[in-house]
Amino acid sequence: MITRAEQAEAQRHAAEMIRRAGITITDAEANSIEVVDFGLSNLDREGVQVLTLVQTERISVKVLVLLPNQTEPEHWHPPVGNDPGKEETVRIIAGTVYFYIPGEDTFIKGFIVEGKDDCYTMRKEVVMQPSDQITLASGKKHWFQTRESGAVMYSFSTIARDALDQFTDPKIIRITEVVD
Amino acid sequence: MITRAEQAEAQRHAAEMIRRAGITITDAEANSIEVVDFGLSNLDREGVQVLTLVQTERISVKVLVLLPNQTEPEHWHPPVGNDPGKEETVRIIAGTVYFYIPGEDTFIKGFIVEGKDDCYTMRKEVVMQPSDQITLASGKKHWFQTRESGAVMYSFSTIARDALDQFTDPKIIRITEVVD
Repeated sequence: MITRAEQAEAQRHAAEMIRRAGITITDAEANSIEVVDFGLSNLDREGVQVLTLVQTERISVKVLVLLPNQTEPEHWHPPVGNDPGKEETVRIIAGTVYFYIPGEDTFIKGFIVEGKDDCYTMRKEVVMQPSDQITLASGKKHWFQTRESGAVMYSFSTIARDALDQFTDPKIIRITEVVD
Repeated sequence: MITRAEQAEAQRHAAEMIRRAGITITDAEANSIEVVDFGLSNLDREGVQVLTLVQTERISVKVLVLLPNQTEPEHWHPPVGNDPGKEETVRIIAGTVYFYIPGEDTFIKGFIVEGKDDCYTMRKEVVMQPSDQITLASGKKHWFQTRESGAVMYSFSTIARDALDQFTDPKIIRITEVVD
Protein backbone atom coordinates (compact mmCIF):
# COMPACT_ATOMS: atom_id res chain seq x y z
CA MET A 1 0.00 0.00 0.00
CA ILE A 2 0.96 3.62 -0.39
CA THR A 3 -0.32 6.72 1.35
CA ARG A 4 -2.38 9.33 -0.44
CA ALA A 5 0.56 11.74 0.00
CA GLU A 6 3.00 9.27 -1.62
CA GLN A 7 0.56 8.75 -4.47
CA ALA A 8 0.19 12.50 -5.04
CA GLU A 9 3.93 13.10 -4.96
CA ALA A 10 4.70 10.23 -7.38
CA GLN A 11 1.97 11.47 -9.71
CA ARG A 12 3.30 15.04 -9.62
CA HIS A 13 6.87 13.86 -10.20
CA ALA A 14 5.84 11.61 -13.11
CA ALA A 15 3.85 14.41 -14.79
CA GLU A 16 6.84 16.73 -14.47
CA MET A 17 9.15 14.12 -16.02
CA ILE A 18 6.72 13.49 -18.89
CA ARG A 19 6.49 17.20 -19.67
CA ARG A 20 10.24 17.69 -19.34
CA ALA A 21 10.63 14.85 -21.87
CA GLY A 22 8.76 17.00 -24.39
CA ILE A 23 5.42 15.16 -24.28
CA THR A 24 2.50 17.58 -24.10
CA ILE A 25 -0.27 16.30 -21.83
CA THR A 26 -3.38 17.95 -20.44
CA ASP A 27 -3.89 18.60 -16.73
CA ALA A 28 -6.67 16.01 -16.78
CA GLU A 29 -4.19 13.48 -18.15
CA ALA A 30 -1.59 14.45 -15.52
CA ASN A 31 -4.20 13.89 -12.83
CA SER A 32 -5.06 10.48 -14.27
CA ILE A 33 -1.54 9.07 -13.88
CA GLU A 34 -1.79 5.76 -12.08
CA VAL A 35 0.79 5.12 -9.36
CA VAL A 36 1.39 1.38 -9.07
CA ASP A 37 3.25 -0.23 -6.15
CA PHE A 38 2.25 -3.80 -7.12
CA GLY A 39 1.14 -4.32 -3.53
CA LEU A 40 4.78 -4.38 -2.43
CA SER A 41 4.76 -1.15 -0.36
CA ASN A 42 8.23 -0.33 -1.67
CA LEU A 43 7.44 2.33 -4.28
CA ASP A 44 10.93 3.87 -4.17
CA ARG A 45 12.39 0.62 -5.56
CA GLU A 46 9.54 -1.34 -7.17
CA GLY A 47 6.73 0.41 -8.98
CA VAL A 48 5.71 2.31 -12.08
CA GLN A 49 3.64 5.35 -13.01
CA VAL A 50 1.25 4.86 -15.92
CA LEU A 51 -0.53 7.43 -18.08
CA THR A 52 -2.99 5.70 -20.40
CA LEU A 53 -3.48 7.70 -23.61
CA VAL A 54 -5.42 5.15 -25.65
CA GLN A 55 -7.35 2.13 -24.43
CA THR A 56 -9.75 0.49 -26.86
CA GLU A 57 -10.84 -3.09 -27.40
CA ARG A 58 -7.94 -3.45 -29.86
CA ILE A 59 -4.96 -1.30 -28.87
CA SER A 60 -3.41 0.50 -25.94
CA VAL A 61 -0.93 3.38 -25.71
CA LYS A 62 0.63 4.32 -22.39
CA VAL A 63 3.35 6.59 -21.15
CA LEU A 64 5.34 4.73 -18.48
CA VAL A 65 7.49 6.59 -15.96
CA LEU A 66 10.11 5.04 -13.75
CA LEU A 67 11.16 7.39 -10.98
CA PRO A 68 14.92 7.39 -10.23
CA ASN A 69 16.11 3.91 -9.20
CA GLN A 70 12.68 2.34 -9.68
CA THR A 71 12.10 -1.14 -11.14
CA GLU A 72 9.04 -2.55 -12.88
CA PRO A 73 8.83 -6.14 -11.61
CA GLU A 74 9.25 -9.16 -13.89
CA HIS A 75 6.00 -10.06 -15.63
CA TRP A 76 4.46 -11.38 -18.83
CA HIS A 77 1.21 -11.02 -20.74
CA PRO A 78 -0.61 -14.36 -20.97
CA PRO A 79 -3.18 -15.47 -23.57
CA VAL A 80 -6.78 -14.40 -22.85
CA GLY A 81 -9.48 -16.28 -24.73
CA ASN A 82 -8.77 -15.95 -28.45
CA ASP A 83 -6.12 -13.29 -27.81
CA PRO A 84 -2.57 -14.76 -27.79
CA GLY A 85 -1.68 -12.15 -25.17
CA LYS A 86 -0.51 -8.56 -25.27
CA GLU A 87 2.26 -7.72 -27.76
CA GLU A 88 4.10 -4.60 -26.66
CA THR A 89 6.69 -2.21 -28.09
CA VAL A 90 8.48 0.01 -25.57
CA ARG A 91 10.20 3.13 -26.93
CA ILE A 92 12.42 5.21 -24.67
CA ILE A 93 11.75 8.96 -24.61
CA ALA A 94 14.00 10.13 -21.77
CA GLY A 95 16.53 8.58 -19.41
CA THR A 96 18.39 5.28 -19.52
CA VAL A 97 16.48 2.02 -19.15
CA TYR A 98 17.96 -1.39 -18.36
CA PHE A 99 15.68 -3.94 -19.94
CA TYR A 100 15.79 -7.66 -19.08
CA ILE A 101 14.50 -10.39 -21.39
CA PRO A 102 14.96 -14.13 -21.98
CA GLY A 103 18.42 -15.19 -23.19
CA GLU A 104 22.01 -15.51 -22.11
CA ASP A 105 22.84 -13.88 -18.76
CA THR A 106 24.58 -10.56 -19.53
CA PHE A 107 23.50 -8.82 -16.34
CA ILE A 108 26.06 -6.11 -15.50
CA LYS A 109 24.60 -2.66 -14.98
CA GLY A 110 21.34 -3.30 -13.16
CA PHE A 111 20.63 -4.10 -9.54
CA ILE A 112 18.42 -6.75 -8.01
CA VAL A 113 16.14 -5.47 -5.28
CA GLU A 114 17.53 -6.84 -2.01
CA GLY A 115 16.54 -10.42 -1.26
CA LYS A 116 14.58 -10.79 -4.49
CA ASP A 117 16.86 -12.87 -6.73
CA ASP A 118 14.05 -15.35 -7.34
CA CYS A 119 11.69 -12.62 -8.54
CA TYR A 120 13.97 -11.29 -11.28
CA THR A 121 14.95 -14.33 -13.33
CA MET A 122 15.49 -12.80 -16.80
CA ARG A 123 19.09 -11.59 -16.97
CA LYS A 124 19.76 -10.75 -20.59
CA GLU A 125 20.46 -7.03 -20.37
CA VAL A 126 19.54 -4.47 -23.02
CA VAL A 127 20.69 -0.93 -22.27
CA MET A 128 18.26 1.51 -23.84
CA GLN A 129 18.55 5.24 -24.53
CA PRO A 130 16.05 7.72 -26.00
CA SER A 131 14.73 6.58 -29.42
CA ASP A 132 15.71 2.96 -28.74
CA GLN A 133 12.79 0.55 -28.80
CA ILE A 134 12.10 -3.12 -28.19
CA THR A 135 9.16 -5.30 -29.22
CA LEU A 136 8.04 -8.03 -26.82
CA ALA A 137 6.03 -10.91 -28.22
CA SER A 138 3.10 -11.99 -26.06
CA GLY A 139 4.07 -14.31 -23.23
CA LYS A 140 7.70 -13.14 -23.13
CA LYS A 141 8.94 -12.42 -19.58
CA HIS A 142 10.48 -9.00 -19.00
CA TRP A 143 11.37 -6.44 -16.36
CA PHE A 144 13.04 -3.07 -16.54
CA GLN A 145 14.78 -0.58 -14.38
CA THR A 146 16.33 2.85 -14.32
CA ARG A 147 19.04 4.45 -12.18
CA GLU A 148 19.53 8.10 -11.21
CA SER A 149 18.17 9.43 -14.52
CA GLY A 150 14.67 8.08 -14.09
CA ALA A 151 12.97 7.25 -17.39
CA VAL A 152 9.99 8.09 -19.57
CA MET A 153 8.87 5.68 -22.28
CA TYR A 154 5.93 4.86 -24.52
CA SER A 155 4.28 1.45 -24.45
CA PHE A 156 2.45 0.73 -27.70
CA SER A 157 0.50 -2.52 -27.56
CA THR A 158 -2.43 -4.64 -28.48
CA ILE A 159 -5.28 -4.55 -25.95
CA ALA A 160 -4.01 -4.24 -22.38
CA ARG A 161 -5.60 -6.24 -19.60
CA ASP A 162 -3.29 -5.22 -16.80
CA ALA A 163 -5.26 -7.07 -14.15
CA LEU A 164 -4.47 -10.36 -15.93
CA ASP A 165 -0.71 -9.82 -16.20
CA GLN A 166 1.34 -12.50 -14.50
CA PHE A 167 4.30 -11.80 -12.20
CA THR A 168 7.24 -13.86 -11.05
CA ASP A 169 7.01 -12.41 -7.52
CA PRO A 170 4.14 -14.28 -5.81
CA LYS A 171 3.59 -11.34 -3.43
CA ILE A 172 2.49 -9.00 -6.18
CA ILE A 173 -1.05 -7.66 -6.31
CA ARG A 174 -1.78 -5.58 -9.41
CA ILE A 175 -4.26 -3.27 -7.65
CA THR A 176 -2.55 -0.62 -5.53
CA GLU A 177 -4.18 0.10 -2.18
CA VAL A 178 -4.09 3.76 -1.19
CA VAL A 179 -4.55 4.73 2.46
CA ASP A 180 -5.02 8.12 4.10
CA MET B 1 4.74 11.77 -59.23
CA ILE B 2 7.31 13.84 -57.42
CA THR B 3 10.93 14.54 -58.24
CA ARG B 4 13.76 13.15 -56.14
CA ALA B 5 14.53 16.73 -55.07
CA GLU B 6 10.94 17.33 -53.92
CA GLN B 7 11.03 14.06 -52.01
CA ALA B 8 14.30 14.97 -50.29
CA GLU B 9 13.07 18.44 -49.37
CA ALA B 10 9.75 17.16 -47.97
CA GLN B 11 11.59 14.50 -45.99
CA ARG B 12 14.04 17.04 -44.56
CA HIS B 13 11.24 19.45 -43.67
CA ALA B 14 9.19 16.71 -42.01
CA ALA B 15 12.15 15.50 -39.93
CA GLU B 16 12.80 19.05 -38.80
CA MET B 17 9.16 19.51 -37.77
CA ILE B 18 9.14 16.19 -35.89
CA ARG B 19 12.26 17.14 -33.95
CA ARG B 20 11.00 20.67 -33.28
CA ALA B 21 7.84 19.06 -31.86
CA GLY B 22 10.02 17.40 -29.22
CA ILE B 23 10.02 13.88 -30.66
CA THR B 24 13.51 12.35 -30.63
CA ILE B 25 14.20 10.27 -33.73
CA THR B 26 17.36 8.72 -35.10
CA ASP B 27 18.96 9.80 -38.37
CA ALA B 28 18.02 6.40 -39.81
CA GLU B 29 14.39 7.10 -38.89
CA ALA B 30 14.59 10.60 -40.41
CA ASN B 31 15.89 9.06 -43.62
CA SER B 32 13.06 6.53 -43.66
CA ILE B 33 10.28 9.15 -43.74
CA GLU B 34 7.94 8.29 -46.59
CA VAL B 35 6.76 11.18 -48.76
CA VAL B 36 3.34 10.37 -50.19
CA ASP B 37 1.72 12.35 -53.01
CA PHE B 38 -1.08 9.80 -53.55
CA GLY B 39 -0.26 9.88 -57.26
CA LEU B 40 -1.77 13.36 -57.52
CA SER B 41 1.46 15.28 -58.29
CA ASN B 42 0.26 18.12 -56.07
CA LEU B 43 2.35 17.57 -52.94
CA ASP B 44 2.05 21.18 -51.76
CA ARG B 45 -1.71 20.73 -51.31
CA GLU B 46 -2.39 16.98 -51.10
CA GLY B 47 0.04 14.62 -49.44
CA VAL B 48 1.48 13.39 -46.17
CA GLN B 49 4.86 12.47 -44.73
CA VAL B 50 4.93 9.22 -42.74
CA LEU B 51 7.50 7.95 -40.26
CA THR B 52 6.68 4.37 -39.26
CA LEU B 53 7.95 3.62 -35.74
CA VAL B 54 6.23 0.29 -35.16
CA GLN B 55 4.82 -2.10 -37.74
CA THR B 56 4.01 -5.62 -36.58
CA GLU B 57 1.33 -8.12 -37.55
CA ARG B 58 -0.85 -6.62 -34.82
CA ILE B 59 -0.19 -2.90 -34.34
CA SER B 60 1.24 0.13 -36.07
CA VAL B 61 2.60 3.44 -34.76
CA LYS B 62 3.39 6.26 -37.13
CA VAL B 63 4.32 9.90 -36.91
CA LEU B 64 2.38 11.81 -39.56
CA VAL B 65 3.49 15.23 -40.76
CA LEU B 66 1.42 17.64 -42.77
CA LEU B 67 3.53 20.40 -44.28
CA PRO B 68 1.93 23.87 -44.17
CA ASN B 69 -1.41 23.92 -46.05
CA GLN B 70 -1.24 20.21 -46.88
CA THR B 71 -4.28 17.89 -46.87
CA GLU B 72 -4.42 14.13 -46.40
CA PRO B 73 -7.13 13.01 -48.84
CA GLU B 74 -10.39 11.42 -47.71
CA HIS B 75 -10.02 7.70 -47.13
CA TRP B 76 -11.11 4.77 -44.99
CA HIS B 77 -9.70 1.47 -43.79
CA PRO B 78 -11.77 -1.44 -45.13
CA PRO B 79 -12.07 -4.95 -43.69
CA VAL B 80 -9.32 -7.38 -44.73
CA GLY B 81 -10.05 -11.08 -44.25
CA ASN B 82 -10.88 -11.62 -40.58
CA ASP B 83 -9.72 -8.10 -39.66
CA PRO B 84 -12.64 -5.62 -39.45
CA GLY B 85 -10.24 -2.94 -40.74
CA LYS B 86 -7.74 -0.61 -39.17
CA GLU B 87 -8.83 1.22 -36.02
CA GLU B 88 -6.80 4.38 -35.57
CA THR B 89 -6.26 7.02 -32.88
CA VAL B 90 -4.67 10.28 -34.04
CA ARG B 91 -3.08 12.48 -31.35
CA ILE B 92 -1.85 15.95 -32.24
CA ILE B 93 1.69 16.81 -31.15
CA ALA B 94 2.25 20.18 -32.86
CA GLY B 95 0.22 22.58 -34.99
CA THR B 96 -3.50 22.86 -35.64
CA VAL B 97 -5.32 20.10 -37.52
CA TYR B 98 -8.77 20.34 -39.09
CA PHE B 99 -10.22 16.86 -39.02
CA TYR B 100 -13.28 15.83 -41.06
CA ILE B 101 -15.50 12.90 -40.17
CA PRO B 102 -19.05 11.66 -40.82
CA GLY B 103 -21.82 13.79 -39.33
CA GLU B 104 -23.56 17.13 -39.67
CA ASP B 105 -21.83 19.61 -42.00
CA THR B 106 -19.98 22.10 -39.78
CA PHE B 107 -17.29 22.94 -42.33
CA ILE B 108 -15.98 26.46 -41.63
CA LYS B 109 -12.23 26.71 -41.22
CA GLY B 110 -10.87 24.28 -43.80
CA PHE B 111 -10.46 24.63 -47.53
CA ILE B 112 -11.36 22.23 -50.31
CA VAL B 113 -8.61 21.71 -52.86
CA GLU B 114 -9.76 23.49 -56.03
CA GLY B 115 -12.20 21.53 -58.14
CA LYS B 116 -12.28 18.59 -55.71
CA ASP B 117 -15.63 19.00 -53.92
CA ASP B 118 -16.57 15.43 -54.81
CA CYS B 119 -13.38 14.04 -53.28
CA TYR B 120 -13.88 15.56 -49.82
CA THR B 121 -17.37 14.54 -48.78
CA MET B 122 -17.06 14.39 -44.99
CA ARG B 123 -17.74 17.88 -43.67
CA LYS B 124 -18.11 17.54 -39.90
CA GLU B 125 -15.19 19.64 -38.67
CA VAL B 126 -13.15 18.91 -35.56
CA VAL B 127 -10.48 21.51 -34.78
CA MET B 128 -7.59 19.82 -33.02
CA GLN B 129 -4.68 21.27 -31.05
CA PRO B 130 -1.69 19.56 -29.39
CA SER B 131 -2.77 16.83 -26.92
CA ASP B 132 -6.19 16.52 -28.59
CA GLN B 133 -6.90 13.06 -29.98
CA ILE B 134 -9.60 11.28 -31.95
CA THR B 135 -10.31 7.57 -32.39
CA LEU B 136 -11.62 6.39 -35.75
CA ALA B 137 -13.43 3.07 -35.91
CA SER B 138 -12.54 0.90 -38.88
CA GLY B 139 -14.39 1.82 -42.05
CA LYS B 140 -15.05 5.42 -40.97
CA LYS B 141 -14.26 7.96 -43.70
CA HIS B 142 -11.92 10.80 -42.74
CA TRP B 143 -9.58 13.44 -44.08
CA PHE B 144 -7.52 16.10 -42.39
CA GLN B 145 -5.72 19.29 -43.14
CA THR B 146 -3.51 21.95 -41.69
CA ARG B 147 -2.94 25.61 -42.50
CA GLU B 148 0.16 27.77 -42.05
CA SER B 149 1.23 25.97 -38.84
CA GLY B 150 1.81 22.60 -40.46
CA ALA B 151 1.20 19.69 -38.08
CA VAL B 152 2.85 16.72 -36.43
CA MET B 153 0.72 13.90 -35.02
CA TYR B 154 0.91 10.30 -33.88
CA SER B 155 -1.22 7.61 -35.47
CA PHE B 156 -1.68 4.64 -33.14
CA SER B 157 -3.51 1.77 -34.80
CA THR B 158 -4.15 -1.87 -35.32
CA ILE B 159 -2.20 -3.42 -38.19
CA ALA B 160 -1.79 -0.99 -41.08
CA ARG B 161 -2.17 -2.16 -44.66
CA ASP B 162 -1.78 1.20 -46.37
CA ALA B 163 -1.88 -0.30 -49.86
CA LEU B 164 -5.44 -1.49 -49.19
CA ASP B 165 -6.80 1.85 -47.94
CA GLN B 166 -9.69 3.15 -49.99
CA PHE B 167 -9.99 6.75 -51.21
CA THR B 168 -12.89 8.88 -52.37
CA ASP B 169 -10.78 10.44 -55.13
CA PRO B 170 -10.68 7.85 -57.96
CA LYS B 171 -7.41 9.33 -59.24
CA ILE B 172 -5.46 8.34 -56.16
CA ILE B 173 -2.67 5.76 -56.36
CA ARG B 174 -1.22 4.87 -52.96
CA ILE B 175 2.29 4.21 -54.28
CA THR B 176 4.21 7.42 -54.92
CA GLU B 177 6.30 7.47 -58.09
CA VAL B 178 9.62 9.30 -57.72
CA VAL B 179 11.42 10.53 -60.82
CA ASP B 180 14.90 11.99 -61.27
